Amino acid sequence: MNPLRIGIAGLGTVGAATVAVIEENAPVLASRTGRRIEITAVSARDRSKQRGFAADRYRWHDDPRALAADPDVDLVCELIGGSDGIALDLVRIALASRKHVVTANKALLAHHGAELARLAEGNGVALAFEPAVAGGIPIVKALREGLAANRIRKITGILNGTSNYILTTMRETGRDFATVLAEAQAKGYAEADPSFDVDGIDAAHKLSLLASLAYGCAPRFDAMRPEGIRAIKPVDIAFAGQLGFRIKLLGTTRLAEGGLVLRMYPAMVPQDAPIAAVEGVFNGITVEGDRVGTAMFEGRGAGAGPTASAVVADIADIARGLRLPTFGVAVGDLRDRPMAPTEDLIGSYYLRLEVVDRPGVLADVAAVLRDHRVSIESLIQRGRDPEQPVTLVLTTHEAPEGAMTRALAAIADLSVVLEAPTMIRIERA
Amino acid sequence: MNPLRIGIAGLGTVGAATVAVIEENAPVLASRTGRRIEITAVSARDRSKQRGFAADRYRWHDDPRALAADPDVDLVCELIGGSDGIALDLVRIALASRKHVVTANKALLAHHGAELARLAEGNGVALAFEPAVAGGIPIVKALREGLAANRIRKITGILNGTSNYILTTMRETGRDFATVLAEAQAKGYAEADPSFDVDGIDAAHKLSLLASLAYGCAPRFDAMRPEGIRAIKPVDIAFAGQLGFRIKLLGTTRLAEGGLVLRMYPAMVPQDAPIAAVEGVFNGITVEGDRVGTAMFEGRGAGAGPTASAVVADIADIARGLRLPTFGVAVGDLRDRPMAPTEDLIGSYYLRLEVVDRPGVLADVAAVLRDHRVSIESLIQRGRDPEQPVTLVLTTHEAPEGAMTRALAAIADLSVVLEAPTMIRIERA
Repeated sequence: MNPLRIGIAGLGTVGAATVAVIEENAPVLASRTGRRIEITAVSARDRSKQRGFAADRYRWHDDPRALAADPDVDLVCELIGGSDGIALDLVRIALASRKHVVTANKALLAHHGAELARLAEGNGVALAFEPAVAGGIPIVKALREGLAANRIRKITGILNGTSNYILTTMRETGRDFATVLAEAQAKGYAEADPSFDVDGIDAAHKLSLLASLAYGCAPRFDAMRPEGIRAIKPVDIAFAGQLGFRIKLLGTTRLAEGGLVLRMYPAMVPQDAPIAAVEGVFNGITVEGDRVGTAMFEGRGAGAGPTASAVVADIADIARGLRLPTFGVAVGDLRDRPMAPTEDLIGSYYLRLEVVDRPGVLADVAAVLRDHRVSIESLIQRGRDPEQPVTLVLTTHEAPEGAMTRALAAIADLSVVLEAPTMIRIERA
Repeated sequence: MNPLRIGIAGLGTVGAATVAVIEENAPVLASRTGRRIEITAVSARDRSKQRGFAADRYRWHDDPRALAADPDVDLVCELIGGSDGIALDLVRIALASRKHVVTANKALLAHHGAELARLAEGNGVALAFEPAVAGGIPIVKALREGLAANRIRKITGILNGTSNYILTTMRETGRDFATVLAEAQAKGYAEADPSFDVDGIDAAHKLSLLASLAYGCAPRFDAMRPEGIRAIKPVDIAFAGQLGFRIKLLGTTRLAEGGLVLRMYPAMVPQDAPIAAVEGVFNGITVEGDRVGTAMFEGRGAGAGPTASAVVADIADIARGLRLPTFGVAVGDLRDRPMAPTEDLIGSYYLRLEVVDRPGVLADVAAVLRDHRVSIESLIQRGRDPEQPVTLVLTTHEAPEGAMTRALAAIADLSVVLEAPTMIRIERA
């Protein structure tokens, strides 16, 4: 059989690691795929940069769009990044030129997934994205194939290694968000602009893709309102521990009565839940299927090696002739799933209030919660120095999020409440 | 496209659950595979048995071998079990009749895998076995496809839910093996003849299949000497806890200098290792790849739902046109891997000795270990009633297993040692 000819656009750490896997594990790959996998062309910004391999062995394109149209390329790896611009042009050109595409670009697919899937299908080629979600964990394959017999009840995931590393380090050291972020940046674990990671955007991109695979719909990142971890304080991490929880930046997707649930926020999970044990830069994903029960996957979510492993797994699938629809079902079968109204979703909540230490404060707070039909499950009160503020921590029983939000606004308006209240959702399952 | 016509041989709990998935999740399956999946024929011992579905909607075969040759069947599910006899006949007939086969039968493939893979390849059909290993975990797919870019450094697995349930319950309750086994049998968690489960045979069958996928060789169950959990005593579980370990029936495969390592035995693993958290009937598998680092998979290893989920995942792959070699590489590429000599393998060890309480005993034991170049890492001595036996617990630094075995024989011969010594291997990674 003819070799499968690969063009690699983007030679950063992931691109260079992809070249390394294809070169160094060539015998194992040829044996597993029954076909030679051969890099023919590469493209990057700076031709002269040292990359640890002889880039001049491959045809060089200054313009990745030219690589995408190169007649000696059968499959394009898009490892440039960005939801628009060059990456989008490149993938469009490659698909229209009937070349398979493997991409690590979650932002691109979260924004343009349906359009690109349609383009791939129309041109009879594959658009694969295992490296875009939780690099070292073959979760796209697990959802699209391994668990294909199941109706998926729920997916819960820790999908961003940087924010998980920050939360883990905050808990272990007691230091605050800004300090730990600065350290992570100094060590290269976090970007200079950390927003995508710590504001939940990157994780939300990934979750929207998992939801598409699970529920056969176009990615609905547009409808998400991700919340990140900047507001998490050491005091909340400490109270979480006392209450038997850990705080994780958690993505959840499921089908509720009102529609698709697709949420990303910091949440308290029970300390003994398997997902709580996913620490540091690791990612972890729990899938609940109607037949399989609960399955859990853990591994490195990012980094050159794990991401390149996923890029080359997709290449190997294509070399073996696998041509699956991008989101697991034909584009014509992708369903329009309305989003479940957030305010109807049922959850339980952790509240931290800084209040005046004076008799009747708790009664005032409890009255507001009662008026909104939110019932208190547990209560901790700390600090009893006269005239000093006291910290009041509550957990609630289950209540609609709308009721909780309105109660929270009313509590913030109480004159005895000194700071904006902190609310963190509790996810028990 | 024509529907894919399924014949199901064996209508026990897994067979009945497979029928239920195909019937109840038909719309989701059709959308994911782009093809109708249709049961046309079934076979079981007793036609009149109530199974919760209308078996008379399908053509009935009293003889599963007739089902395997039925011209209206494209794919045969072998859910009968047993390494030889009817199951083997049936699979041979189906493959020779150019029908795909999906099997949940690890014993069959551990014993006849290479022959059957060759038969499938020669007839241009698939022989798939996701349900045979850790039902609810898509680990066959992960190794064959998701991690295909990696050289696999090591696989460590808890692959038998019954023995894991027994060990977990023994630790939680302090009860002994026989008592917990009897309870498990009463609850239906263990078979009347528990040998396959508690003697490590079932888990060894599965491990031999994972090793074939990881290392491109025919299954080498014949060369394994699995050790089970019958000899594990509450006292050893308690000492394990004191030393920071948990005892698990652990399978390990890797390529060592001397050849393929393929071992199944109860081992002590660090309490905080992810695999230690795999409890009760769950299975867990850790894969170390040269690119991906460590990935971990956890889920239900058995039971009707999880196993049927895996059966139907394989059916869906075949419906989508996937035709991968049974063990991930063409039969002609399967390598002959010599087994690494057990005695050269390096490990560390837990020893428990019941000895006479008299000065000099420890010196005698230490001298034997020194003579065999096994060095002591830690020591616990318990029970100091005069004239009563005392328990001596040691852990060792790393040493070849041959040296440890010889030292153990010499220790057993010491007159101060009152019972056969207990040795349990320690697996730190």
